[in-house]
Amino acid sequence: MKYKAINFYKKYSLFNDRWSPKVIAEMNDYQFKLAKIKGDFKWHSHKDTDEAFIVIKGHLKINFKDGFVDLSEGEMFVVPKGVEHQPSSKNEAQILLIEPRGVINTGNLKPNELTAENDVWI
Amino acid sequence: MKYKAINFYKKYSLFNDRWSPKVIAEMNDYQFKLAKIKGDFKWHSHKDTDEAFIVIKGHLKINFKDGFVDLSEGEMFVVPKGVEHQPSSKNEAQILLIEPRGVINTGNLKPNELTAENDVWI
Repeated sequence: MKYKAINFYKKYSLFNDRWSPKVIAEMNDYQFKLAKIKGDFKWHSHKDTDEAFIVIKGHLKINFKDGFVDLSEGEMFVVPKGVEHQPSSKNEAQILLIEPRGVINTGNLKPNELTAENDVWI
Repeated sequence: MKYKAINFYKKYSLFNDRWSPKVIAEMNDYQFKLAKIKGDFKWHSHKDTDEAFIVIKGHLKINFKDGFVDLSEGEMFVVPKGVEHQPSSKNEAQILLIEPRGVINTGNLKPNELTAENDVWI
């Protein structure tokens, strides 16, 4: 049988839209999603789940109501469930998200212009 | 409040033992674990869960009974539950494992010299 590595860099070369996570793998009922981001996302929270961020390229700042964390390539952070946060990146960053299947990117907010379609594989 | 990035490279500098995953983060009931590996691990499987491998540095080969996959830096693979596999690395590789809390590294095998203690944080 043929087994194929999932290469982050090749996957990133396949899309340019921002704030629109693309699924690249599943592990049980969790998904690995790549996203390109730039600017400020909306403040939101996920009431039922933690959310893991890994920076593949560039810089990601995650703002919290009482602080922030700066992440560079080779760094990660897990936002606890229910915690309001705002991802932000001055220049474009490439990030890997890990979270349960079905999580909406804009969390507790009403669907808006930044709400991405789920289960878009690349 | 102070939020702190988890830096893979700094974490790797803190240990040298091989085949001995160290927990660096939790997301719900899943764990992110760093490991240094070299040589061949034992053939094993995990009957209840998939297992995700991301290569941070070096090369990881995962052998299957009917093939293999070669992973380099920036590549990942998810081994499906129940599938026998043998991780291997000719030279030392640094890998990130993501799997549910409580998974034993040697899977279905009787505890042996490669069976690592669980929940060792670094």
